[in-house]
Formats: sequence, structure tokens, C-alpha cells
Amino acid sequence: MIVSDTYAELTRRFARMQALAEAVGLLDWDTQVVMPGGGAEARSDLMATLRVLRHEMLTAPDLDDLLDRADDGGDPWRRADLREMRRDRLHATALPADLVAANSRAASRCETVWRTARPASDFAAIRPSLDEVVRLQREIAAAKSERLGLAPYDALLDLYQPDGRSAEIDRLFDALTGTLPGLLGAVLERQAARPAPPSPDGPFPVEAQRALGVAMMAAVGLEPDRTRLDVSAHPFCKGLAGEVRITTRYDTADFTGALMGVLHEAGHALYHRGLPDGARDQPAGRHRGMAIHESQSLIVEMQACRSPAFLGWLAPRAADAFGASGPAWTPANLVRLYGRVSRGFIRVEADEVTYPLHVILRYRLERAMIAGDLAVADLPAAWAEGMRDLLGVVPPDDRRGCLQDIHWPTGAFGYFPCYTLGALGAAQLFGAALRDEPGIPDALGRGDFAPLVGWLRQHVHARASSVDQATLMVEATGRPLGVEAFLAHLRRRYLDA
Amino acid sequence: MIVSDTYAELTRRFARMQALAEAVGLLDWDTQVVMPGGGAEARSDLMATLRVLRHEMLTAPDLDDLLDRADDGGDPWRRADLREMRRDRLHATALPADLVAANSRAASRCETVWRTARPASDFAAIRPSLDEVVRLQREIAAAKSERLGLAPYDALLDLYQPDGRSAEIDRLFDALTGTLPGLLGAVLERQAARPAPPSPDGPFPVEAQRALGVAMMAAVGLEPDRTRLDVSAHPFCKGLAGEVRITTRYDTADFTGALMGVLHEAGHALYHRGLPDGARDQPAGRHRGMAIHESQSLIVEMQACRSPAFLGWLAPRAADAFGASGPAWTPANLVRLYGRVSRGFIRVEADEVTYPLHVILRYRLERAMIAGDLAVADLPAAWAEGMRDLLGVVPPDDRRGCLQDIHWPTGAFGYFPCYTLGALGAAQLFGAALRDEPGIPDALGRGDFAPLVGWLRQHVHARASSVDQATLMVEATGRPLGVEAFLAHLRRRYLDA
Repeated sequence: MIVSDTYAELTRRFARMQALAEAVGLLDWDTQVVMPGGGAEARSDLMATLRVLRHEMLTAPDLDDLLDRADDGGDPWRRADLREMRRDRLHATALPADLVAANSRAASRCETVWRTARPASDFAAIRPSLDEVVRLQREIAAAKSERLGLAPYDALLDLYQPDGRSAEIDRLFDALTGTLPGLLGAVLERQAARPAPPSPDGPFPVEAQRALGVAMMAAVGLEPDRTRLDVSAHPFCKGLAGEVRITTRYDTADFTGALMGVLHEAGHALYHRGLPDGARDQPAGRHRGMAIHESQSLIVEMQACRSPAFLGWLAPRAADAFGASGPAWTPANLVRLYGRVSRGFIRVEADEVTYPLHVILRYRLERAMIAGDLAVADLPAAWAEGMRDLLGVVPPDDRRGCLQDIHWPTGAFGYFPCYTLGALGAAQLFGAALRDEPGIPDALGRGDFAPLVGWLRQHVHARASSVDQATLMVEATGRPLGVEAFLAHLRRRYLDA
Repeated sequence: MIVSDTYAELTRRFARMQALAEAVGLLDWDTQVVMPGGGAEARSDLMATLRVLRHEMLTAPDLDDLLDRADDGGDPWRRADLREMRRDRLHATALPADLVAANSRAASRCETVWRTARPASDFAAIRPSLDEVVRLQREIAAAKSERLGLAPYDALLDLYQPDGRSAEIDRLFDALTGTLPGLLGAVLERQAARPAPPSPDGPFPVEAQRALGVAMMAAVGLEPDRTRLDVSAHPFCKGLAGEVRITTRYDTADFTGALMGVLHEAGHALYHRGLPDGARDQPAGRHRGMAIHESQSLIVEMQACRSPAFLGWLAPRAADAFGASGPAWTPANLVRLYGRVSRGFIRVEADEVTYPLHVILRYRLERAMIAGDLAVADLPAAWAEGMRDLLGVVPPDDRRGCLQDIHWPTGAFGYFPCYTLGALGAAQLFGAALRDEPGIPDALGRGDFAPLVGWLRQHVHARASSVDQATLMVEATGRPLGVEAFLAHLRRRYLDA
């Protein structure tokens, strides 16, 4: 086989793996959005079978030889594509099949227990199965550590954040913990000095909320004939071939959460739709990890849509959508409503000032568990202590404490830091976009996202996985990822405004 | 490998193929019900890739050896399972992979064109893509004909109606064309002698129609947590692992069509849910072809639900669903409304007297297209001529003519005759059920489908593909499939009642 034939054969094989991944993605959307409950057991068998088929293609004995012989011919895209293929292969072959199977079983068992243990705040019920999940995650970390030549925790992190390293995260997170608690105190003091903003009066019918959400999706630039908005228990964005689907959940007493949730997912969706269409089936054509993905949702939600410019445009449209008026609906009041900060217990309800502290807590605890320095039995106490240290509040029960997230029960260790890396990246990328395109705030004030999205398409979306995220960040913003832009953004919005 | 290991290996492989077929089934439902239009092209590529993966498993070089060595050990189920595996293998190896992929892509593309060409009555728009579909179907027919030792059309038919032969269909259809036109004349004459039944006054809100449909699905015995009811352009029933999904379309001016359409699809759904659950991934556990499938929908719709007994139970419930009353809502009037016969243009709106004539037209035309005796360009003219001959009416446009059905655009040649074979089977099976369970009509009068469905489960559903359809019919009814029970049913309902 000549060099170009080798690459063509690899391309063909990875496109087939992508077809299976795509089918699993659609099945996952279907499971969460439309599947009748009685189909659950057969569905999980089906998804497992498709995953095994993909895994077998990725671990096929002759793939190493193809990857060894393939040459990029000096083409940078092809070089990146081969690098990603090798990365996939390395992750897939790092683990023995029985460890993969044991982990999959333990995770689904623990997730099932979690679904009832969380509302019951019953840590004792989940402890044995979570113990097993952590034990297997430590085995996985050890196996991948050896194969990838990384520290055990970094070997887990690498799955969600390619080339992410905890030394770098420590540096960034230390800078945040050195600053955020003081900043938070100042913000809360300033907030307490003013009367609370009046809340818009509901009820807000689901149909009206949905119509507003759909209008906002179109406003940010999502193509209506390639987009869906549905309802699910846990909001998510599912990128599929040629289309993208967002979910949310509605509260008829308060429209603000679902509306901003839709805009958050719309940021993820824009990233997906901005990936190069012709490279859809290629590893280099994929998104560049969960930190970049989260940065794209947070640029839309936190940087653009919570800005006074955009909220000034949104306010009359939101009032109109619900046939409402009055002092709660002024742009200034909407800015205050969307800028509330509090020391809460729940990560997914947290504002952007406290959110990193929730993440840092989880990062510390999961690193300690993977290192063997923290036993699952000691998790509730460590959680309480960490919350007191970082946020100054202690949750009254485990439901609002260490049981609140689905990540650990499902074995997703190494995911949490991506949320805050994304927040840092969002602020830094948005700053660079403003530098290159000073008209962005005015455009947002007219509900026009084209200048912002155009910049993101060029500097982030279209690059896909053709460069690593460190290079992407330096080339887009002029410097490596740091905390400065984020902290400056918080000071501007919550202290200076 | 010892004998039982060989069978176990075959079972494992066919379960994987079934997983791919299942994924394609879900993708098909998604395409027709929820997919944003912009995703169509990528979707058809994806479905083609998954079909090719399945095709490759089915044509794997070592499969013949496994099938040759496998022994049924004297077990009838295992014997049927191996027979079906060999049948699958034969169909698959008859076609080169590139023909399978080309056909899948051409069909998806033509279906997409059809979705706009049909409402616009634009035959010219669909002609090139339909040409391509027919060209590929003729290639497929030729390849399968050689491999299966069947006439080209029969080789296509065999996919939908295993062991079906056009010689047998000709015999049955000739008996119908010799009788039905005269019978139709007599029915129309009798109908014209009475004033038309009053129509219930609408509008009938979609939500109320949907609620009634859902209630009827539960009444016939479908489990609510394993069932969905949605809207699509072309109503269908999609059986999935552990669940089943029905679609319909609503007319707010007339609820009768959607309601009976839901009951029709519910018959298909009952068959799917009645297949042996433990054999879901086995070839012998599948439904026994589209004629038997259609017989199950028509037993529910035509034999059970249009009977005076059931309509007597339905009438007050339908009136209640729409908050209506009056002479249009009496059981006797509902019987007359659901017994109207007319020389119409549209197959899916046709009554059971004229329906076979619509089918016979399509059967003749598709046989001619596959034989190369009819060009796609000449289809509209041939359609008009056939309608004049068989039904005595000519559609004013192609929307109500040769563009009305989804079958040909999607490459489903050989499917149409199954509808009328199903109608014949429904009458014959229902007669046998009444013979064995004389309490069925009384039960239907109480909205109780258990005696009928119980009989069908035993004599049809649970048998799956463990026997061929000729055997199934003889064992369930005492004789081979014929036209007598169907014609007797029509005379009883439309001339003697």
C-alpha cells in the first residue's frame, strides 16, 4: 500500500467508527428526550453493542501498522488527523477489555443507585458502589498512566481535555483561590447595599418560553432547519451530523433560567455547527475537548448574553413574549437579575463568581480520591470542609453536597476542571474578539451576533482539532490561558459597573 | 468448534447485525418524525454506512462455513433460526456492497425530493432521482434473481414477503379483479339509494384527537410505557427493541381518518410487541413478512374496529372526547360513516372494497418497471390508464396519482402486493379466530380486545418466523390463503347488512 492509500484506508476506517459514534449519539438523545421508559433496558444493551463494535475497530490488530506507515505528506491537517487517530488508538488499547467491562457495569450500577440516593440524601446507600467505581477509576488511571506516560490523574483528564495537565490547572486554580474569596466578599457587600431587584411576575407559559428560546437560537445564528429545542430532565446539547439539538427544562414561575440555559447550549451548538463540514468524519475535524467546548457556551451565555448591551435588546422582547410590562422588565433590572451572586450549595445553579470555587472543590477531592489520599467514606466530611474553606457555607445534607452531581457515580473523573478552564478561556477569547472587532458590543445591542460568531468561527470553530488547545489559545488571543481576563471581567461586571 | 459453539457464534454475530438494523430503524423513525430538514443529507450517508457495516458482517467470508457446519440438534426453533440466517446470507451475498450503498443513498435522496415534489404535484422534479432508484432496483432484481433462482420481480418480493411468488399473487389478484368491480358497482348502487350519513361537525382539535388515539392504543392492549404516538407525513409503525412507535396525521375537520389510522398502526404494533421477547435478536424471532404484518393491522382496523360491535362501544367515547352529541354520533351512524365506499384517487384513504384495486394497479406498474416494460417518464400516463381500467376514475394531477406513495421513492419495489395479501389474510384469520373464540364480538362490544389479541398472540405473533407464512396460515385457519373469506366479508358488510 502506498502512503496515500494508507491514509485513505485510515480515513475510511475512522469514518466508520464515527458513524457508530454518531448512531450512539442519536440513541442517547432519543433516550433522554423521546424514548418510552419501557425501552430503557433494551436501549442500553443496544448502545453497549454499538460501542463494542466501534471499540473493536479501534483496537483492530492491523491498525497500528497502518498508523505506523501513514505519512502526512507535509500537510498540516493530515498531520493533525493522524495525531488524533493515534490518540484514539492509544486510549482504546491502554485498557484490557475486562477492565472496560467492569467499569461500565460498576458505573451503570452506581448511577442507578445515585438516582434514588440523591433525592433521599442517602450517602450510605451509594457508598459501596461508589467505592467500586473509584477503585476501578484508579486501576484505569494506573493503566493509562503507564501507556500514555502521564501522571494517573492526568491520564484520566486527557480523555476530556486533550493535553490537559494538572500542574497547569493547579497554577490557574491557585491564582483563583488566592483572589476569588476576597472578590466574592466585596461583590456580596456591594450587592447587599442595594435593595433586591424586583422579579417579573409569572406564570410564564411553557409555549411562550419555548417560542422565546427558539427566537434566541435564531438570533445567535443557529440555522432553524438544522436545530431542535426539546425538553429533558438534564439540559444538554447534542451535535449530530449536519444538525444540532438543544434541550432545556422550563419553570413556569421563572423564565430566566431556561432562557439563559438555552443560550448557554446555543453556544455549544454554534461550536458544533462551526466545525468544518467536510471534515465531519475525521478525527481532526472534531471539537477540541471539553474546556474549549465550555468556553464557547460561556462566551455566548456569560460574556455576550449577560452583557448590558445584549440585555438591553432582550428586555423588551422578553416582556413582549409574555405580554408583560413594568419595572421588573427594564434593561437595567434584567442586568441586575442576571447578575445576582450568592454563596449557594449547588454547582449548576451557581453564578459565574462562585462557580469556579464549586469546581475547585471537586477537582481537589477527585484528585485526592484517584491518588488514594481520600477514601469514599470520608467524602461527606471532606466536602463540608472544602465548602467551608472555599465558599464559607456548609450544605445541610449530602443531597446538596457530594451527591448533587452525576459525574462521579458514572465514573467521569477528570471532567470537572474543564468547566472552569472554559470560563477562563471564554473571558480571554471574548477579550481578544473585542480587540479585533470593537463593534461587537454595539452589534449585540442590536441582537446581532454575526461579528462575534464570525470571529469565533475563524479563531476557534473552524480549527476543530487541527491544533492543540494551547496553540489555539495563543494564536487567537496572543497569550497562553490565564486567569487575568476572567478576573478583570468579574471586577468590571460585579464591582465597577 | 463443536456444533453448539458454532450456533452460539452465529447467534452472537446475528445479534450484532440486529443491533445495526435496530440503529437504522431508530434513525429512520427520527428522520421521519423529528429530524430538522437540514440534516437529511448527512443522515442518509450515516444510514448508508450502518447498512454497509451490517452488510459486510452478513457477507463475511467465513459465515458460509459456520452456516454449513451449524446443526439444529433437532430443535425446531433452532432449525428455523438457521434457515432465516441462511436466507439473510443469500439475500446479502447476492448484492455487491457498492450497490447496497448506492441504493441506500439514492433512496434517501429520492425520498427527500418526494417530500416537496408530492405536495407540489411536480413529477418532473422527482423524475431523475426516481429514474436512478428504478435503475438500481432493476440491478438489484437481476443480481438477486440469479442468486435466488427466482424471477427478477419475485426476487424483490421475497424481501418483504418471504417465499411469496407472483404466480400465486396473480392467481389471487385475478380472482379479485374478476369479482371486485362488479361487487363495487353493487355496493355503490346500494349506498346511493340511501341518504348520506350526517358528518360530525368539527373542528376537532389535534390534542383531543391525540388523546382519543392514545386511549384507543391502550384499549387494544398496547403498554403505555412502551409506546409513542407522533405525527409524520406518512403514517407508519416502527417496532424497536422493547418498544413500538406509531405515527399519524391529523385533519381538524375530520377525526375519523386519524382515529382509524391509529388503530390500524396499533394492529402492527401489537404484532411487534407479541413477538417472543427473548428472541428479539434472532432471525427466527422476527415478524414473518409484510403480508402477515398487514393482516395484523387490518384485523384490528377492518375486522375488529369497523365492526358494529366495536363502533357501538366507540361512539359515545368519541362523542365524549370532543364534547359532542347528536344524530351524527350514534353507533349506527358511525357504522355508516366508517362503511362509506367510493371510487377515490388515494390509496391510503381508500375503503376496503376499492383498496385492492389501488394495490393491483401498483403491482402491475412496478412489475412493468422492473421488467423494463415501463419507463419512469411514462408512469403518469400509465397510472391514469390503470386507474380508468380498475376504478373508473382518473386523478386530476400526479399528487393524487403516481406521487402519492412513499414506496417507490424509497426503493420499496415488491412491497405493494403485501397490502392486499394482508387484507385476504386478515379476513381469513379473523374468521378462524371467531370459530375458535365465539365471544370475540361481544368482547369488542365492551372495548375488550383480550380474546382476539390472545388468539392472535398464540396463532400468529408468538410464532414469529419459526414457520413460513403458508404453514402459519394453514395451521391457524385450516386452509391456504384465498380470496373467499375476504369476499364473503365484503358481501356481508356492504351488501347483506
